[in-house]
Amino acid sequence: MGQCHCHKKRKDSQELTDVERAIEIVINNFHRYAVKGRKECLTPNELRDLVVQQLPQLSQHVCSLDEKIECLGDPDEAKLEFGEYWAIIGEAAKGCRVKK
Amino acid sequence: MGQCHCHKKRKDSQELTDVERAIEIVINNFHRYAVKGRKECLTPNELRDLVVQQLPQLSQHVCSLDEKIECLGDPDEAKLEFGEYWAIIGEAAKGCRVKK
Repeated sequence: MGQCHCHKKRKDSQELTDVERAIEIVINNFHRYAVKGRKECLTPNELRDLVVQQLPQLSQHVCSLDEKIECLGDPDEAKLEFGEYWAIIGEAAKGCRVKK
Repeated sequence: MGQCHCHKKRKDSQELTDVERAIEIVINNFHRYAVKGRKECLTPNELRDLVVQQLPQLSQHVCSLDEKIECLGDPDEAKLEFGEYWAIIGEAAKGCRVKK
């Protein structure tokens, strides 16, 4: 209790639901690409790699994602926090939901 | 191309990545609970059911989630859009990330 390891392999016996496991996968994906500089942040280039490799279908439904990534600052220096990563995916997911 | 069915069973042959499938699960979870009134929105009571049933571990890491849900308005009438649902989960996920 009071501790959460949902971004790592869980060592305790608490069972996650399917939805929690799905969220864990999205969290882990952030950490998998956040390797350069501060590990709690993605650079724009890391985000681009993540999108190309992990979100090829989803990213089709975000208008001008490339432009958005360019606006984030220096490709190798700017720091993108988890909340920004989550918001970008949310925008893409919203796009998917609307286009039926 | 140009159409997205990531909130439904996919009928085309485009393969989703693990991360995209995970996002699809989180999207589908919204629709599973958004049954009353406008189907594109959750009521606060539907959100509470969703959190209790689907996010029992994750919700431990959001301070006063109950209070937050109460602030969303009339439990059976207020309409919570997908973006708000996504943001609440993001807050919880951020909480998980920070507490190591």
